[in-house]
Amino acid sequence: MAHEKYQELLNTLHDCMVQCNHCYDACLNEDDVKMMAPCIRLDRECADICGYLAQAITHGTPYVAELASVCAKICEDCGNECKKHEQEHCQKCADICMKCADACRKVA
Amino acid sequence: MAHEKYQELLNTLHDCMVQCNHCYDACLNEDDVKMMAPCIRLDRECADICGYLAQAITHGTPYVAELASVCAKICEDCGNECKKHEQEHCQKCADICMKCADACRKVA
Amino acid sequence: MAHEKYQELLNTLHDCMVQCNHCYDACLNEDDVKMMAPCIRLDRECADICGYLAQAITHGTPYVAELASVCAKICEDCGNECKKHEQEHCQKCADICMKCADACRKVA
Amino acid sequence: MAHEKYQELLNTLHDCMVQCNHCYDACLNEDDVKMMAPCIRLDRECADICGYLAQAITHGTPYVAELASVCAKICEDCGNECKKHEQEHCQKCADICMKCADACRKVA
Repeated sequence: MAHEKYQELLNTLHDCMVQCNHCYDACLNEDDVKMMAPCIRLDRECADICGYLAQAITHGTPYVAELASVCAKICEDCGNECKKHEQEHCQKCADICMKCADACRKVA
Repeated sequence: MAHEKYQELLNTLHDCMVQCNHCYDACLNEDDVKMMAPCIRLDRECADICGYLAQAITHGTPYVAELASVCAKICEDCGNECKKHEQEHCQKCADICMKCADACRKVA
Repeated sequence: MAHEKYQELLNTLHDCMVQCNHCYDACLNEDDVKMMAPCIRLDRECADICGYLAQAITHGTPYVAELASVCAKICEDCGNECKKHEQEHCQKCADICMKCADACRKVA
Repeated sequence: MAHEKYQELLNTLHDCMVQCNHCYDACLNEDDVKMMAPCIRLDRECADICGYLAQAITHGTPYVAELASVCAKICEDCGNECKKHEQEHCQKCADICMKCADACRKVA
């Protein structure tokens, strides 16, 4: 079944969703929020699409490839934005985003 | 702003989400649910992606084209499945799905 | 059917989702983003729950009252935060949030 | 941070979302789909709210208690429906739903 076939991807999507939302939360608590605005936007985009793809895969969507292709792009963009910031929450977010982009590309 | 530029698309996505969820609900109440199973699946897929795209557009996503492309495909598949069934909820759903697929293709 | 019984509420939820997401987007473009951080957070909360409730109502959820009760609270909190800011996007958002909180309370 | 404080709940919500969506998928493949219709409906409800609550907790929502209260109710109802069916996917789903209902009640 879908949730077994894609177990590793599902775990990665979950980790990426968690870390992006944590980074979003932490960015909004930073002193210089303005500098973090692009990161806040992409963190939400990325958490939303990772959560969406996990839902879709587990209920047996036939659109895994199409959705994973969009998700890979958003993860990569979010990872590249996070990389620019030295905060630990951004650096950790960048790592999982890149890992998730790779995992999505494999099924896209 | 995004919600003004895409106002017509947003209305169509909302109508399509409403009608797909209504069709899902009505299909699950039919006597022959087994025959409606593919329709139930696609109704959920289509309602979910239409709702997702509406959220994304209104918060200013830079991924309108990518998401609308996936949405167009799902709308079209859902419309083609609904067309096969003579029930009024399926026929109305097929119409709005095809209209929504067209609207998505214009921005994809 | 659910989507006819709740048609006015569904329209209000849609308008509130659109306006909250627009306010979120506009707040992230302001010069003083830090001052808008609580508004950004609540705009996302409110857009998310309004979109969620609209999906749930239209697929025939038996949990309208419970979900609408949470939605009413979030709409009211978002409206009260938006009221504090003089920007037009915040003032318009406050108005629709209060209207949506009222509409949710009627079914909660 | 929220994603550390609630780590165990987040894992349970993820497992419950996965199992409910798998049960939804498997129920739609059963020979007697009509008998599974209430299970299909509740599986979607439960997967949706578990996914929603996980998103909300990880982006730092102040509404954990309110949302977890609704989630607990839906998990319990879904678990009770699944218990009635002898299929393995329903029995496994019932177990995780009851576990998730308990976990939600602790923070509600």
